[in-house]
Amino acid sequence: MNASRSIGVFDSGIGGLTVLREIRRLLPNEDILYFGDTARVPYGTKSADTVRDFASQIVDFLVGQKVKLIVVACNTVSAMALDHLRKRFKSVPLFGVVEPGVTAAVGATKNRRIGVIGTVATVNSNAYRDRLLEADPRLTIVQQACPLFVPLVETGWTGNAVALLTAKEYLSSLKKKAIDTLVLGCTHYPLLKPVIRKVMGKAVTLVDSAEEIAGDIRAYLGLRRLRNNRKGKGSIRCWLSDRSPYSIRAAAFILKEKNLRIELKKF
Amino acid sequence: MNASRSIGVFDSGIGGLTVLREIRRLLPNEDILYFGDTARVPYGTKSADTVRDFASQIVDFLVGQKVKLIVVACNTVSAMALDHLRKRFKSVPLFGVVEPGVTAAVGATKNRRIGVIGTVATVNSNAYRDRLLEADPRLTIVQQACPLFVPLVETGWTGNAVALLTAKEYLSSLKKKAIDTLVLGCTHYPLLKPVIRKVMGKAVTLVDSAEEIAGDIRAYLGLRRLRNNRKGKGSIRCWLSDRSPYSIRAAAFILKEKNLRIELKKF
Repeated sequence: MNASRSIGVFDSGIGGLTVLREIRRLLPNEDILYFGDTARVPYGTKSADTVRDFASQIVDFLVGQKVKLIVVACNTVSAMALDHLRKRFKSVPLFGVVEPGVTAAVGATKNRRIGVIGTVATVNSNAYRDRLLEADPRLTIVQQACPLFVPLVETGWTGNAVALLTAKEYLSSLKKKAIDTLVLGCTHYPLLKPVIRKVMGKAVTLVDSAEEIAGDIRAYLGLRRLRNNRKGKGSIRCWLSDRSPYSIRAAAFILKEKNLRIELKKF
Repeated sequence: MNASRSIGVFDSGIGGLTVLREIRRLLPNEDILYFGDTARVPYGTKSADTVRDFASQIVDFLVGQKVKLIVVACNTVSAMALDHLRKRFKSVPLFGVVEPGVTAAVGATKNRRIGVIGTVATVNSNAYRDRLLEADPRLTIVQQACPLFVPLVETGWTGNAVALLTAKEYLSSLKKKAIDTLVLGCTHYPLLKPVIRKVMGKAVTLVDSAEEIAGDIRAYLGLRRLRNNRKGKGSIRCWLSDRSPYSIRAAAFILKEKNLRIELKKF
């Protein structure tokens, strides 16, 4: 593997750009390729079969771009399809967001009571619960699917009365279970942190996998001597499968990169 | 064209089954084919380019099944892609849901003030507004996109406090404009009728295109002598591009058909 190759990152939509942003902050010299499947978003309400098909097409595309590793920035894909992808694509290391979230949550909890929120698909897969219990069988895990959180974020309703009422509906049962740590198991959820914080209270630690995974990638590249040692900033190349005005605006807002050119890639 | 051929119906998801149900009620002898693009739903947040691509693939598939006509049960496709599809597929008549909704609304209004609600894509296309003003230039049209209504219905939150608060957010501006008729410009919205009715009040007529289009199809087939004259009930054949447990449950709930077999068709 060649250190000058790019890092590939993909997500069902534009939420994974929060992961790209963290990687760029920690590894500014790296070239990064991003693919967002905005034509088929969301994945979190769809079956494992479909999620695996879509993710395989994207990994195939990124492998063709000769990346040195791939970050699966989508929690639904990480939870439902990562093992499948690792078996199918052996030439490139694949990093999911579930494992770093698990490590961070186990490190943060004091009372061993952890909540996990995510899409219906992520929660039903039990990926977080199973890995948390592998890491520490004494944990108590409480899961809650929050299917309306992604559309709320995509609508831009992150701080209004509807967002707060929805957060109360989903989270009040978690609050009663006296958890001290809550895993935000979806790349969209960090954008709802203020209302989640309001419902859960200040004492609960919110775990955001985007922050965790960037540190893991830096450690991996350092150990393998795969860090790009060029001088100056790396490039960002971004493909979306649908270029709606919303997705272009949202991508620019999340990345805050000047002259970001978004290319169209259809499957 | 042969009268014994099937009627094709398609939608971005399972919402269009409400249209199929109405057609079956009025034309019980007809064989009906249904395609729901549950792998790529929703369409209403995506660009015209993507919506046209997806719809063309589906029409191509239904034409291959030798249907005698195709009902575009999706408002977003009807608004953004119907002219495109009609130019591309000249061998089969295509019926959209916008035109019947327009006819019904013009017939219902007394004060010539009509509201239109739909997805972002439907509202931005101005398809309803333009056709309403063609039908009667004296009309005042007020449009409102309601992007959270589809996810609310898909989550099953059609009557709770979040649904009511969301309806108030979207509809209070329409209420102030003193409309007497409201076009429900999305196949999902009839399932929110109770909360829409609660916000808008009893005096406003709610126009549901599913009901209107079935009558149009019956009239068309009668005039062209294309009605299936067989004895006994016609068959229903249903394809989805993703078979999640939710979509299978929802399809069975909407259709109330025994032994409904749902086939998988991927693009």
